[in-house]
Order: sequence, then structure tokens, then C-alpha cells
Amino acid sequence: MTTIGILTSGGDCPGLNAVIRGAVLKGATVHGQEFVGFLDGWRGLVEGEAIPLDRPRVRGLSHEGGTILGTSRFGPFQGPDGGAENIARTLDRLGVDAVIAIGGEGTAAASQRLHEGGIRIVGVPKTIDNDLDQTDYTFGFDTAVEIATEAIDRLRTTGNSHKRCMVLEVMGRNAGWIALHSGTAGGAHAILIPEHPESIEQICEWVTSVRDRGRSPMVVVAEGFTLPGMAQAHSTKGLDGFDRPRLGGIAEVLAPMIQERTGIETRATVLGHIQRGGVPTAFDRVLATRLGMAVTDLVADGQWGHMVALHGTEIVRVGFDEALVDHKSVPEHRYQEMRIIFG
Amino acid sequence: MTTIGILTSGGDCPGLNAVIRGAVLKGATVHGQEFVGFLDGWRGLVEGEAIPLDRPRVRGLSHEGGTILGTSRFGPFQGPDGGAENIARTLDRLGVDAVIAIGGEGTAAASQRLHEGGIRIVGVPKTIDNDLDQTDYTFGFDTAVEIATEAIDRLRTTGNSHKRCMVLEVMGRNAGWIALHSGTAGGAHAILIPEHPESIEQICEWVTSVRDRGRSPMVVVAEGFTLPGMAQAHSTKGLDGFDRPRLGGIAEVLAPMIQERTGIETRATVLGHIQRGGVPTAFDRVLATRLGMAVTDLVADGQWGHMVALHGTEIVRVGFDEALVDHKSVPEHRYQEMRIIFG
Amino acid sequence: MTTIGILTSGGDCPGLNAVIRGAVLKGATVHGQEFVGFLDGWRGLVEGEAIPLDRPRVRGLSHEGGTILGTSRFGPFQGPDGGAENIARTLDRLGVDAVIAIGGEGTAAASQRLHEGGIRIVGVPKTIDNDLDQTDYTFGFDTAVEIATEAIDRLRTTGNSHKRCMVLEVMGRNAGWIALHSGTAGGAHAILIPEHPESIEQICEWVTSVRDRGRSPMVVVAEGFTLPGMAQAHSTKGLDGFDRPRLGGIAEVLAPMIQERTGIETRATVLGHIQRGGVPTAFDRVLATRLGMAVTDLVADGQWGHMVALHGTEIVRVGFDEALVDHKSVPEHRYQEMRIIFG
Amino acid sequence: MTTIGILTSGGDCPGLNAVIRGAVLKGATVHGQEFVGFLDGWRGLVEGEAIPLDRPRVRGLSHEGGTILGTSRFGPFQGPDGGAENIARTLDRLGVDAVIAIGGEGTAAASQRLHEGGIRIVGVPKTIDNDLDQTDYTFGFDTAVEIATEAIDRLRTTGNSHKRCMVLEVMGRNAGWIALHSGTAGGAHAILIPEHPESIEQICEWVTSVRDRGRSPMVVVAEGFTLPGMAQAHSTKGLDGFDRPRLGGIAEVLAPMIQERTGIETRATVLGHIQRGGVPTAFDRVLATRLGMAVTDLVADGQWGHMVALHGTEIVRVGFDEALVDHKSVPEHRYQEMRIIFG
Repeated sequence: MTTIGILTSGGDCPGLNAVIRGAVLKGATVHGQEFVGFLDGWRGLVEGEAIPLDRPRVRGLSHEGGTILGTSRFGPFQGPDGGAENIARTLDRLGVDAVIAIGGEGTAAASQRLHEGGIRIVGVPKTIDNDLDQTDYTFGFDTAVEIATEAIDRLRTTGNSHKRCMVLEVMGRNAGWIALHSGTAGGAHAILIPEHPESIEQICEWVTSVRDRGRSPMVVVAEGFTLPGMAQAHSTKGLDGFDRPRLGGIAEVLAPMIQERTGIETRATVLGHIQRGGVPTAFDRVLATRLGMAVTDLVADGQWGHMVALHGTEIVRVGFDEALVDHKSVPEHRYQEMRIIFG
Repeated sequence: MTTIGILTSGGDCPGLNAVIRGAVLKGATVHGQEFVGFLDGWRGLVEGEAIPLDRPRVRGLSHEGGTILGTSRFGPFQGPDGGAENIARTLDRLGVDAVIAIGGEGTAAASQRLHEGGIRIVGVPKTIDNDLDQTDYTFGFDTAVEIATEAIDRLRTTGNSHKRCMVLEVMGRNAGWIALHSGTAGGAHAILIPEHPESIEQICEWVTSVRDRGRSPMVVVAEGFTLPGMAQAHSTKGLDGFDRPRLGGIAEVLAPMIQERTGIETRATVLGHIQRGGVPTAFDRVLATRLGMAVTDLVADGQWGHMVALHGTEIVRVGFDEALVDHKSVPEHRYQEMRIIFG
Repeated sequence: MTTIGILTSGGDCPGLNAVIRGAVLKGATVHGQEFVGFLDGWRGLVEGEAIPLDRPRVRGLSHEGGTILGTSRFGPFQGPDGGAENIARTLDRLGVDAVIAIGGEGTAAASQRLHEGGIRIVGVPKTIDNDLDQTDYTFGFDTAVEIATEAIDRLRTTGNSHKRCMVLEVMGRNAGWIALHSGTAGGAHAILIPEHPESIEQICEWVTSVRDRGRSPMVVVAEGFTLPGMAQAHSTKGLDGFDRPRLGGIAEVLAPMIQERTGIETRATVLGHIQRGGVPTAFDRVLATRLGMAVTDLVADGQWGHMVALHGTEIVRVGFDEALVDHKSVPEHRYQEMRIIFG
Repeated sequence: MTTIGILTSGGDCPGLNAVIRGAVLKGATVHGQEFVGFLDGWRGLVEGEAIPLDRPRVRGLSHEGGTILGTSRFGPFQGPDGGAENIARTLDRLGVDAVIAIGGEGTAAASQRLHEGGIRIVGVPKTIDNDLDQTDYTFGFDTAVEIATEAIDRLRTTGNSHKRCMVLEVMGRNAGWIALHSGTAGGAHAILIPEHPESIEQICEWVTSVRDRGRSPMVVVAEGFTLPGMAQAHSTKGLDGFDRPRLGGIAEVLAPMIQERTGIETRATVLGHIQRGGVPTAFDRVLATRLGMAVTDLVADGQWGHMVALHGTEIVRVGFDEALVDHKSVPEHRYQEMRIIFG
């Protein structure tokens, strides 16, 4: 009987619980695996704090946001009990044979180091920003896009009534996927992403052209977007970050600039944490459930150092090392595909 | 044949279009009335800019947010063409016999003055904050509460995952109705409203007590709430206001104070304009439709200087002068009813 | 210390859990009451099967549909252990001092009998159909209306695309409140309710007139509506009923009749059980929470034989006997108010 | 200047309007194309009934369900004006240079024949059932899955309260994609699809096993599922079909069988037409917009006889002939992946 410890690390996102449920249901039924959950990400693993995870415990979890295991910014090489050797001893003491780490780029990097240090570890990729390479989509992203799109739908009616320009700031520190998809879905007149600089003059040209057609301009901006020459002070840490006091986002920088230059009353909205909470979309629940089920096969096959990923419609296996080579930015052709109809 | 001019004034809210539709459908069918719509609130009336409103024009409007007539901060006594006498001439020139003004307290006051000046005018009360006296509810409020409640549901899962205190700022400059209802619906651990001062010590006591029970504290605060001794600088103008540059709301004041005093990581979210846009709830559509239909009876009966209102489950008639006597604040017993279970 | 037993009886509806939570939170905090929950409605009371209800048990319940206590069609005078005397002994044995019964008309009638038999019992009115007299609204109704309205919004786009007449059947065996409100909110072209007969000729006239204006007709019908002369065979038991095999509703009767007489392709949808499940609206959560909190005051005051109810914006107290005098049907003026714009 | 005629054929689904909008916006801006819309699918093309489609006409369409062009079951080889030669003359007369046909398998087959007959035609794949080969997903499918998943979430709470087995019938005549995805997302205990027979004994075994664990069984069944030995009478025409009077679906066949064999009270819900209407999800809006934009490139490149499709995250081009080789059924490994945890 294999006992597996699961942990969720980094910023939470909708679908984490569905991964946990999928793993426990399939692992128990098909592979005869048993499960425990480490609390608060790597902290629970390092400090040996775990709770039993059986079928009744994961009941009904597929539609619950957040993570029942908690999460934190703690790293596995942190503190006196960190590091591969100590962790190996802790796992041994707890009777845990293998680890499933659900997390983002940092988690994959740490998992790879632990794998190299001899820990039997596999992974499930997680980033609400969708910026992990080697997987078509990460769970949580679709939910965030849906929430942002609903916000655009709402802002549009009030913008039109008041003939205002509305600027919506969505998540995306390094990659503009949420802005690109929600802006496309919501019919935004300009989408601003970290990968592609746009000048304030260009932005105001789009805004003015929309107003001149008798409509109310809608601008969607990723939190990591910067104007040329602007220090990235506002985005040193985003919603995932834990240290940064909230000083106002890029939307609150852009709105007065647009208003001053175009003469159009402009209002900023920062969507913030509501993008990462609540009931996941069906898309994210399906993806998360499938990833959770598939990762138990990695353990059964002893394919350590690998994570599961989505290619097209199929779940595949990818080495942590491959996943870490590149960041998944919005490719230029995807941005240009939409930019051509801005304004 | 009576021709009626409709206008929507002040901040928009979900249900305005349903009022317009209800009035046009019933007025045309039952009373043989015809309708035009003045553009951008009082401006359209003062400047004589109107569009025809017939049945095809209002088709499908019950579920559309905003107002197809536009709205503005313009007042009817403003400019060279303002005032009762000028407006009487303009109405005469346009062949408009009576006016339906949909708006808040300011609109009711202006309507009363115009009524005293001889204009045949009736009204429909509108305030998303629900702070108009003489009506149990105003349309738009239920939608705002629903949106705020969904935000609380979302923030709760991410708050729990990270063991954070979440502070959500909702609308309500002078009255805390949205905070009270959404906080009640969302199971908030503290609800802060303009009508009732609470000290930062008391707030932190609630927050700490929640944490000590192993939960993540959820604080809902109305934008008009102030701490004792705090100048109300942050709320001189709220979402309804048009002049104020956005400088950060009360949530962004409270969050760091809570974090510092309790040691609990605390995050602020300002819900902002998304509370006033988008598809109205069924409750608001029904209320708005009924008010729109009923206000055409006021015109048919020549009951000038009155507005329609909701008492229990029935639509009644109220004089503008009665409606203006008092503001509808959250009564102390309603606040205490909830406060007793805070923390 | 008073110990109170809570039970939920009859068909479930969104908000039951919020009542339970509100009662436990306030009762414990303010009145020092303790709570147990009887399982499966009156069955749990009669058979003495109860679970403890403390604060942690009701955590997070305000947004959960259904009832954690279960419900059934069992009556308190049923079986060898039923009746006031036996129940008094059972309560005594369990150490339960008073009973809160959450239920509809049948529950109120049974509660009144038990009250007359000496049981210390108070009540919370519950009917998703909103047909209980002495209260402006019952919780669950707003959620059902919202769900039905969303269904109308969805059916409209597909109806328009195919130029079909869509017939939607909603709940309402004896009262047409859900049909009236959702039909109003959704802009239906005909609303058919049990309280008001309409001939198939009249219905087809409305449908044809809509088609002639180039639109796709939308008909909303309450399950209890019958055509003149039609036996009410299809509605002997509705969604609340437990015995009836599902034989097709009134929508499935009307659709082919409309299609045959008008030549317009017509499709029926029976919304069914999804109207009574899932997350309650904010309106229902607030109402349910307030009722749950207020009913503990009835116990504290020893006001047996009474239930709490909504009058305007306030929670009031009503004797079971008063509540049982009348059914709350849709009044003729409310129906005519809408009927005037049908077609 | 190229003039393009767009048509939407077959059953409607959410996203059609977003395709139209995407094509018009990009075609006009990038390729200098002009657009007309044929009304009611192939009928408008055959009878030469078209409306102009310019930028203002497609404004705000990305979030509107249905199709502004209407749709019908008419085929292009039907009637005296049908067939490639007649259509070529009609296009010539209207000054239309190329056709974009948005439709399913039948539309692709007809388009291929017209292409072979010399018509300059390209396509966009559309099937709410997701059963078209050569594309990872079709738009409308994600929305249908989301609606079905919400229904499961709602049914679950009422099922649990009453300890009932709930059977939900969703769309899917030949392919069980909607059942598979919504059942996975909603945590169903059994998913029944046309591709995979299951006996009533097996189904009841799952249902009983769920009940024995103290839970309420949830069964999701695609409309095209049949029990072994059962004639497929109930599904000769599904929701897409236009002739069939609605006689009760497979859910209404299964529910009484389950109830009789297991003794568990069982209720059927047929979701029906609400699955294909209303606001599309953000996923579907993005996919539809991208397909609409990309199909204008096919015209610009003169790549007749091809349609656009989704492979992974990219839009690609596929010949109608390739698309017609196979149906996209749920592959056995995808079904087994979930079946393993049924019960």
C-alpha cells in the first residue's frame, strides 16, 4: 500500500480542491493508494503536519474554491527542518512514500531539486495566470477569465449610461492571458498586457476613436502592464505576493492620464482577489479532476520528477525540468490578432 | 393623446431600462399615451433633446443594465435654458405634456420645485443605496447586494486558503444598506456602516476572535464608514460623485490598520462600479417594471408632484414633499440585530 | 439553559440552512439557548433522532441550499410514537424544552395542533411557492424566481433564432407567484396561473399577435394552471408531492395545442427540481437569517403557537391560527396589472 | 472589394453572434471585406434574402446568445432555387463573392458539395454536442456544460435533503460529451452516454452503493443513451430535431426503473432547450471570436472548401472533406477514466 502526501503551494486558485478529490478518488479505487494532506503547502511537509484524506473527506469538493489544505509562501528548503534530507526523514517518520506537489513555477523548481535529492515527488501545474509552459491551460485560469468577463459586461452598461471610459485591471503580473481572454470575450476596445508595450498616446487614440463612434471605451489592463519609461513600481508584487502593501494598481495610474488627455471622464476598477476565489467553472473542474486522477498514475508508475499537463484534449506527462525552461507569455501573433480591431 | 417625456438622472443602476419599458408598454396599451425620452437626464429636457420611445424601442429592455437614455449630473435649473418657465416653453415646443423623472433625492427635490413652478411632473424613486424614505426598497439595490454577496462568497474561499482577513468595500456613502444586506447574506464577521461608529479596537477584537476560532475573518465596510476621529476625506464623493479623483477607499485604510494591530495578513478589495452595472436581478426587474407601469397611472390621473413607491407588496403614491422629509438610514435595531453575532 | 429542537419539514427550498444558522448563532449568543436538530422533519422528532447543533456545525451555511437536517413527508401525528402526548414524553427524554418547526401550511397546522396539545412550539414559514398568508414573502421564492428568470432569458435567444414559441413551466400548484414574477422579469408575452383561467383561444391570440410583430412568443405557465374544462389530472401532485409518477406537465399539454392552432413551431421546457436547489439569492439569505434569528426571541419570550413573518421590511409575529385562515393567491389586480400588456 | 455572405444553419448555440461579430470586425479592418447576412440559414442564401452587416450592426454581439441571422432546417439543394448553379446565379445577382457557412456536420457536407459545384465557400464548425472531428472543441459546448453543471449543483442539494436519487438528462444524441464533462464537473455518481452501453443492473448497483454510503445518488444521462435491448424510440430526434413531438426523454424512462429496483425515491429532470440559449461563457466567446476572425483569412487567401478549427490553443485550417471522415465520439479511455470512480 502506497501512502501519498498532497500539498498545495503558492496563491490559491479555483480547482485545487477538485485536484485533491480527483487524486483521492482514483488513487484509492484504482491503485489502492492512501492519502494524507500536508497543511499550508510546504510548511506542512517540512514540519510534518498532515491530516488524513479519505473518500468522505473529499466529498463534494469539486465545486469548492480555495484549498482545504491551506497554502503558504513557505519553501521546502526553508528553516532547520527543510531540505531533501530532512524531508526524507520526515516522510519516513510519517510513513509517507511519495509526494504530490500542486503549485506553480516556484513549486516545480523546488520539486525538481527535491527529486534530484532523492524524494519521490510528482506534480500538478497550477497558475491562475496561465503562464506555465508545457500545458495548454492551467486550472483556475478559465474561472478568472469568466469573472473578469462578467465584470466587463457590468462595467459596459454603466460606462454607456454615463459616457465614461472604464478601465478594468485584472490579474497577470508577467503574462497577459487573463486580460487577453477576458478583453476578447467582453469586447474591450483596448487590451494592455505586460508582453507588449503601448504608449499612452496610442491608448488615448483608441479611446478617442471609440468615443467618436458614439460608444463608451472599455480598456482592460493586466496588472503587470507598464507604460514605456514607467518604472514597474506598482507591480513589484501582485496578488500572489504576500509582502506588498497595496498602493494602487496600473488602472489607477492610467485612468487620470486618459481622462486628462482625452477629456473623457474615466473610472478605474481593480478586480483583485475576487478573481481567485469561489466556485470554479465547469471547464476548470473537469481539467482539475482529470489532472488529479492522472497524477496518481505517475505515482503508480514511479515516474518521479514529472508532472501532468494538458495537450489539446489529452492529459500528458512532462518532466519538471522541461516545464521550467520557458515561461508561457502571450505570443505576439495572439496579441496582434486582437490588436488589429482595437479602437 | 398625452405625450410624456421620460428622463433618467444621477448615477445609473440596474432596472432603469425596465422602468422605461414598463411605462411605455402600459402607457401605450392602457392609457393611449405616447412617449419620448430626454437624453442624459435633465440636460435633454433643458436643451430639448429627445428621442421617440415606442414599443419596438423598448423591446427586450427588462434585462438590460444601465439606461438607454443616458444620464448626467446636469440639473434642471442650470444654464440659460433651465428653470420652470424655460422648461415649460421647451415642453410646449416639443409637444410634451408631462414629465416622468426617474432619479434620487436630488431629482425628487428638483421635481418638487418644477412641480411648484407649474410643470406637470411625476417621479420614480431611484437610488442604488436604498436610502430613499417612503419606499421599502428601490430597484438596483437588490442587484448591488447580490453582486456584493457573490464577491464575499469568492473572497471567503481565498481568505480561508491563505488564513487572511479580507476587507470588502461596498457602496453606501450615507447609508449602509448594501453592506448590511450583503454582509448578512455572506456571513461576514463584521459589518461597518456610516450610521454606526465602531472603533478600530472593536473591529480588531472581532477579527481576532474569528481567527482564534480557526476561521478567516471577513469584514464588509460601506464606503461612507469612518473611524471615530477620522476625517471623512476619503468619502467626500462616492461612486455616484463625478468630480472626485479616486484616492483609495476606506477598505484600503482599514486593511493595514487591522494587519498591524492583529498580526493577521489582511487584504482589501474595493468592489466599485461593477456593483451598479449589468443584468438586474429578477427582484429588481419586477419592482422596476411595476413602478414604470404604475407611474403612467399618475399621469393619467393628473396626480402631479407625486412619485410611485413600494409599501410591502403594493405600489403606492407618495408626494415628492413627503419623500424629501427624511433619509432612510439603517435603523439602530436593524444594525444591532446583526452586530450581536459579529466576531 | 433552554434546549431547542429544530426541524425542517416538507419540500426543501433555498434558505433553510440560513434559518438554522441564524437561529443557532443568535440563540447561543443572546439567549444562551442550546440547539439540536431533528432529522428528516417530524420523523426525527417523533422517533427522537436528533443531532447536536452548535456554532461550528452551522458555519458557512448561509449560502448552502437544501437542509442539513433532511426533510420528509412524515407527520407528527403519524405512527405509534406520534401525537402531542408521545412527543412531549420524547422531548422530555431528550431534554428538549421547545421546538422550532420550519415548514409550510401543513406544518403550521400540525404545529397549531401540537401547541394546543401543550407542546412548546414556534414556527418559521416556508413555501417556495410564496403562497402562505400573513407574510409578504417566504424565503426560497426569490431564488426560484431568479432561476426561472434566467431560464426565460436563455430560452428567448434560442426561440428568436428559430422563430419558435417557447413554453416554460415553473412551479406553483395552487398559486402563480413564481410564474407571475419570473414572467414579469423575463418579459413573457403570456403568463398563465392557477388563479386565473385563460382559454386556449386567448393564449393563441397572444402568441399569434407576438409572431405578427416579428417576435418569438414566450409563454410562462405555472404547473397548477388548467385550461377551462380540463381535468387537473396533470397536477394532482406537484414537485412538492412525493407519490406521483411524472407524467408530463401542463407545458407539454399546451405546446402541441399552440403549435397546431397557430402553425408556430412550439417547444416546452419543464424547469422542475432545479428551481428548488442550489445557492440561495442574497435576498433569501437575508430573509432566512433574520427569520432564524427572530424565532429564537419567540422561544425566549415563551410566545408559543406563533411564527415569525415578514411585513414590509420588518420581522413580526403571527399566530399559527391567523396564518392558517387564508391561502395567499395572486390577487386579481396583480394579475390584471400584467395581463394588460400580454401579447 | 470582396463581399461575403454569412449564414448560420441548424440548431442555434451560444457563440454564433460572436463568430459573426469577429468576422465582420476583422474582415472590414484587415481585409477590406464587406459583409451581408443571409437570413434563416441556407434559406436566405437560396432565396436571396440578405441584410447588410456592418460594424454598428455587430456591436455588442459577443455576449448575446442565439443568432441575429436566424436559422432553419432548410438545405441548399432544396426547392427550385437550390443547387450550386442556382446559388451561383443568386450570389452573382446579389454581388456576393464568397460564402461563410457556420454549421454542423450537415452544413459541412452541403458546403463541400457546393464547393465542388464551384461556389466559393468556407466554413466555421458548430455543434453544441462537440461531436465534430478535426477540432478540439466547438463553441457553445462549454456554455452547455456550464449550464448542465449548475443544474447538477442545484439538484444535489435538493436530492440530499430528500434522500432522493436525481436523474438529469442533458443534450447529446450521438455523443456524450456534455454528459461526460458536466457529470465530471458536478461529481455525478454515474454518467450514461450513447457511446457506452450500461445495463440497468449496473446503474442500480452504482445508485445503491451511493445510498449505502449515506449519500444521494446523482445520475447524468445523455439524451441519446439507451439501455441494452431498448429501441432508441425516445431519441429519434433530439433537441436539434424539428419534427418530433416531445414524448419524454430517457431520464423519464430511467427514473421509475431505478426507483422500482432500488427502492430509492427517484426524480427525473430534462434540461432541454435552456442548454442552448443565453449568454455564452467567456471560453465560448473567445473561441467563437477567434474562429470568426480567422475565417476571413480563408476568404482573403481564397482557400475555398476549408473551415477553421481549434487544435490545442491555435486556430488551424481543415478541408471540409477531412472534417467529414469521422464523428468525434467520446473515446473509450475518456469514459473509463471516469467510470472507474462511479458509484
